[in-house]
Amino acid sequence: MAGNTFGQVFRITTFGESHGLAIGAVIDGCPAGVAIDENYIQREMDRRRPGQSSIVTQRKESDQVEILSGVFEGKTTGMPIALLIKNEDARSKDYGHIADKFRPSHADYTYYSKYGIRDYRGGGRSSARETAARVAAGAIAKLLLKHLNIEIQAFVSRVGELALAKNYQELDLSQVETNDVRCPDTATAEQMEALIKQVRKAGDTIGGVVSCVIKGCPAGLGEPVFDKLHADLGKAMLSINACKGFEIGSGFGSVAMRGSVHNDVFENLEGKITTRTNNSGGIQGGISNGMDIYFSAAFKPVATIVQAQDSLNEAGEKVTVEGKGRHDPCVVPRAVPIVEAMAALVLADHLLRQNTANLHSIMNL
Amino acid sequence: MAGNTFGQVFRITTFGESHGLAIGAVIDGCPAGVAIDENYIQREMDRRRPGQSSIVTQRKESDQVEILSGVFEGKTTGMPIALLIKNEDARSKDYGHIADKFRPSHADYTYYSKYGIRDYRGGGRSSARETAARVAAGAIAKLLLKHLNIEIQAFVSRVGELALAKNYQELDLSQVETNDVRCPDTATAEQMEALIKQVRKAGDTIGGVVSCVIKGCPAGLGEPVFDKLHADLGKAMLSINACKGFEIGSGFGSVAMRGSVHNDVFENLEGKITTRTNNSGGIQGGISNGMDIYFSAAFKPVATIVQAQDSLNEAGEKVTVEGKGRHDPCVVPRAVPIVEAMAALVLADHLLRQNTANLHSIMNL
Amino acid sequence: MAGNTFGQVFRITTFGESHGLAIGAVIDGCPAGVAIDENYIQREMDRRRPGQSSIVTQRKESDQVEILSGVFEGKTTGMPIALLIKNEDARSKDYGHIADKFRPSHADYTYYSKYGIRDYRGGGRSSARETAARVAAGAIAKLLLKHLNIEIQAFVSRVGELALAKNYQELDLSQVETNDVRCPDTATAEQMEALIKQVRKAGDTIGGVVSCVIKGCPAGLGEPVFDKLHADLGKAMLSINACKGFEIGSGFGSVAMRGSVHNDVFENLEGKITTRTNNSGGIQGGISNGMDIYFSAAFKPVATIVQAQDSLNEAGEKVTVEGKGRHDPCVVPRAVPIVEAMAALVLADHLLRQNTANLHSIMNL
Amino acid sequence: MAGNTFGQVFRITTFGESHGLAIGAVIDGCPAGVAIDENYIQREMDRRRPGQSSIVTQRKESDQVEILSGVFEGKTTGMPIALLIKNEDARSKDYGHIADKFRPSHADYTYYSKYGIRDYRGGGRSSARETAARVAAGAIAKLLLKHLNIEIQAFVSRVGELALAKNYQELDLSQVETNDVRCPDTATAEQMEALIKQVRKAGDTIGGVVSCVIKGCPAGLGEPVFDKLHADLGKAMLSINACKGFEIGSGFGSVAMRGSVHNDVFENLEGKITTRTNNSGGIQGGISNGMDIYFSAAFKPVATIVQAQDSLNEAGEKVTVEGKGRHDPCVVPRAVPIVEAMAALVLADHLLRQNTANLHSIMNL
Repeated sequence: MAGNTFGQVFRITTFGESHGLAIGAVIDGCPAGVAIDENYIQREMDRRRPGQSSIVTQRKESDQVEILSGVFEGKTTGMPIALLIKNEDARSKDYGHIADKFRPSHADYTYYSKYGIRDYRGGGRSSARETAARVAAGAIAKLLLKHLNIEIQAFVSRVGELALAKNYQELDLSQVETNDVRCPDTATAEQMEALIKQVRKAGDTIGGVVSCVIKGCPAGLGEPVFDKLHADLGKAMLSINACKGFEIGSGFGSVAMRGSVHNDVFENLEGKITTRTNNSGGIQGGISNGMDIYFSAAFKPVATIVQAQDSLNEAGEKVTVEGKGRHDPCVVPRAVPIVEAMAALVLADHLLRQNTANLHSIMNL
Repeated sequence: MAGNTFGQVFRITTFGESHGLAIGAVIDGCPAGVAIDENYIQREMDRRRPGQSSIVTQRKESDQVEILSGVFEGKTTGMPIALLIKNEDARSKDYGHIADKFRPSHADYTYYSKYGIRDYRGGGRSSARETAARVAAGAIAKLLLKHLNIEIQAFVSRVGELALAKNYQELDLSQVETNDVRCPDTATAEQMEALIKQVRKAGDTIGGVVSCVIKGCPAGLGEPVFDKLHADLGKAMLSINACKGFEIGSGFGSVAMRGSVHNDVFENLEGKITTRTNNSGGIQGGISNGMDIYFSAAFKPVATIVQAQDSLNEAGEKVTVEGKGRHDPCVVPRAVPIVEAMAALVLADHLLRQNTANLHSIMNL
Repeated sequence: MAGNTFGQVFRITTFGESHGLAIGAVIDGCPAGVAIDENYIQREMDRRRPGQSSIVTQRKESDQVEILSGVFEGKTTGMPIALLIKNEDARSKDYGHIADKFRPSHADYTYYSKYGIRDYRGGGRSSARETAARVAAGAIAKLLLKHLNIEIQAFVSRVGELALAKNYQELDLSQVETNDVRCPDTATAEQMEALIKQVRKAGDTIGGVVSCVIKGCPAGLGEPVFDKLHADLGKAMLSINACKGFEIGSGFGSVAMRGSVHNDVFENLEGKITTRTNNSGGIQGGISNGMDIYFSAAFKPVATIVQAQDSLNEAGEKVTVEGKGRHDPCVVPRAVPIVEAMAALVLADHLLRQNTANLHSIMNL
Repeated sequence: MAGNTFGQVFRITTFGESHGLAIGAVIDGCPAGVAIDENYIQREMDRRRPGQSSIVTQRKESDQVEILSGVFEGKTTGMPIALLIKNEDARSKDYGHIADKFRPSHADYTYYSKYGIRDYRGGGRSSARETAARVAAGAIAKLLLKHLNIEIQAFVSRVGELALAKNYQELDLSQVETNDVRCPDTATAEQMEALIKQVRKAGDTIGGVVSCVIKGCPAGLGEPVFDKLHADLGKAMLSINACKGFEIGSGFGSVAMRGSVHNDVFENLEGKITTRTNNSGGIQGGISNGMDIYFSAAFKPVATIVQAQDSLNEAGEKVTVEGKGRHDPCVVPRAVPIVEAMAALVLADHLLRQNTANLHSIMNL
């Protein structure tokens, strides 16, 4: 049973390889009546698009999204929404030299082990190009969430050793898109950009952390006991290329805390139930509590480096590989819209799932 | 759409509340022919059982597992396997005093928000008692994995500020069960135990980290692009009560590394393809590569503390709550078998899923 | 991937073998707040129970349902509902003589082919005893449907050559439970009963048809294009032991009709949109239209006969088998509550699914 | 939760409306290594294509299938296979006159009830045009089944009152494609064609039956207790537009039989276990037994007729509708390849599912 579908009720299936004819997604389960703003979708695509700045891969793709179905007179109809993105700058010849070689820390060897065959052009489906389809589908999810005033904002909180000193409440998240790194603190952003350029110059790559804040999520989303909201967010993030870690709320930092400090005390703020602190990250027992949801995802340094590396070929013989394809020295700036898209898909799904949790909602039928 | 089912092919559904008649699990999709050793299942239960040592909750449960179906003459038949564990020491009266109160950082408020009704006795289904069903089902998964010589070993790698200095290759994992903390380094284990006792004495709780190593996993498990093996492991761990973070391989530590250092170079060891380092944690592109799989999960301090805390009741009025129920001062010692169980469920599921990935396996039909 | 789960949102998983310790079901996805009347559940069980009359199997089972979880203070909590029915009269010794024989038109050979092992006692899981779990779960679904005034009534419309001459609108369905056959026309019922007794006396069995009418179903249930309401009803019925055919509305009879006669013309009855005829059987384009839903299911004669039959054993050798176990001469009287239960499960599932079909319902969240 | 996905392991999601830009399907879970013959796929499309003969709709569509992903160097790679079919002859203006009217026995009213919005052009997604995507995906399934020598052949067995007198074993199924009706008996085919033409001339439509035979299916496919092979075949057929009934093997005809006649006695034919008769239709207990699988599906007369009919509009007012769009006077000739495609999808899915049923197959990993 393959794994190219995500979500239970708001459900996407993506398809396509890095150097095939096209990539895309089919959304099934988007409710009828959602207003579709095609310009908004394209703006989201542009945030992920290669070639947008000097610190990302220079592959040229316009990433125009064609909506093939499911939208009529500007609104979703409840039918499956097919989204198509043609591949334009697919220089397959760039990859002929590695057709039978396993690049270190890439998916070449594992795909070959699993399927006995692989589309080696640009990593085939293991390429992060697939995430363009996620961003397109995520944009539709965001448009659904807008109807309920749920907003999602991700940002780069760390590149290599450089980490934001402030927590998210102290940051001005409106500044995220003002710099190429997508770090809301301008001074840190400049340092990060310099570090990325320095690493790229050395033919190397570097990791980073993307953090994300969701505002306006109502209490009640998340499905015990396995589909806890943060468990699904975690899976969503870990399914993004190069993601190696996830934490919700206080995360790994909670380990050294005492319960008496970590517990989020409830308060009644003029009729609204809130918590004094938010170590829970907006989720308790796997269900949203109405506070901000926040989490972070760790990304490793990209495996493609412009340096000679020892490796093996399909015959098990020693070979040398050296990155030639266009690639990112650090994925986190472009990962920001992908993290948001995956978060939006999780939220949209759980929003619809919550609609069947109690008799009260059913009786509205 | 509720979330009490886990897995796609090897699939479990758990049921039961902390203070109801029983908890249990139904496994659907376990292949026929797996040898079932009931003593083994019970030993796994005993590792998670409350009251097993002085540093865990003193609730008394024998946690005897009854196999109601799916096993005939010592082997699985391919039919659903129903596992039943009766609740014995369910002192509901312990919870009357919090029937309409929301305990801080518990799931009381969120369950109430979601369902409009809640079984307040011992946290109902949000109680970690549910994980006993996971351990029982996980034991069946482990018995399946034994047929393929796949072994899973978890251990406590951190309690509060006390972290193991060594990485897993330097540890003697056969020592895990020699102490109550389940830390393979005896000296550190003693310190951890002392710390847990000190915290408990203060009426407080503390967090920790459980790490896990899987040996013998063949290359090829994991399903691109969403059901990557580490994404499913991450979701599995994050679905365990109190888990706040997950990392695979180099995890959050990868962020500060350069690609040239992080990349795992392939080597041919007498015909077997291996990697010189294992920053990937045994998974590349979401698919196992035949190396050890290793990951860690962060657990927050338990929310139940023996101290008075401010809170609210269902009417939104200010109240005081104070933990009286029996609870763990630190969950990680008992989380060790739960982490293993969830890992076994993920592996069993992906093992079966891999069986349909290429035509070669189908032709064996 | 095994097949013991039914439904997408209101979802049941059944377990248990004819001669194991118990059978049962776990329901996941029943909304919180449904009033649970245990007497009602038991009455439904009694309608399916063996030994209830002289024309059904004489196996003795009280079929008491124990609710292990998911109900608190008389209402569902949104948690999984585990239902347990212990096997009492499980005379395994009755089946020793066929342990390695394949009974004609039973599932002995196919289970053996599929799993390589089989629980031969009473047919193991292939026994219709499993349907008791469906009736228990279906009773919960019916209690949910009651909140929306949806009513389901099945009845025997044919036994062997004896068919009801009237269509369902001309019948008094309140008479169904007044006779052992469960045929609403008393005169026909008497003939049917006589026929069944005559067949039983000959050591033989006979088939029949169960028809079903659903009243009060709102327009809008059913999910294009694969999960059409009648497609899911069809699958539900065909999954019942011995069912060989299904038809919705005009069914096979529609084949000889012209479109001009078959089309159901819309009419406005004091503001309510109805159709003049109902050849559609209440479903158009796979979605309910608010009219009565009606369908029929054909059941073959039971395979167990009290006559010597040629067959083979596991070694492929010629053997003779002869029915000794208790069995039904005709399944349709006991199939009536099973057909209703499966219909209720389909309806409950689609009712919940409909709750996410358009933005209007979501905004009620 | 929408219903545009079919299958569990070999899984398709279709998209597209009658008069949108394109229709298509994404297959996830097709194993790697299947040889893809694009000409074969196109031939299957041509069998369903409109305008192929004088007794079908005259809409002009070339129905060229573009494979966007998942195939590399002539073989499937295990990645999702996206299939695209552009709409060419989409005369939306044909439908302006019924934009707010509910055509009798069409899905106009039910879609409107369900979604609150509808794409009225040509019935939108409720149009049988969607089945072109099924045929394309089914062709891939057939190519997979070819590797295991499983063959599927459907044919028209009845049009209106005209039914084939012979059972399938007496027919020469190689003759199916020799006439426009797709009835293997030439004489009957001529009568059927004449009847269809006569009905069309009257501006009317007529129903029919498609029967199907599957040869070479190994024993063991089908998943108790809900996903019985014939239950999934039944659902597959009932999900096809205009299908009102389904029967497997002896079907409705079994009702009047006695068990002693109906039972299929096992025989050992030179080491192969067979049955003397095949009333079971190749499936016992929901699992294939290695004999021919055969079933029939009833199709109602098409709802679009060239006659004035009373109806209502969205405001509930009385209106008159009259078919103007191009349509089929009888669907069964074009339904033949659709029935085969759906059967192939069910078989492919269950073939893969069977691969995880017992430990023996797993150990081959």
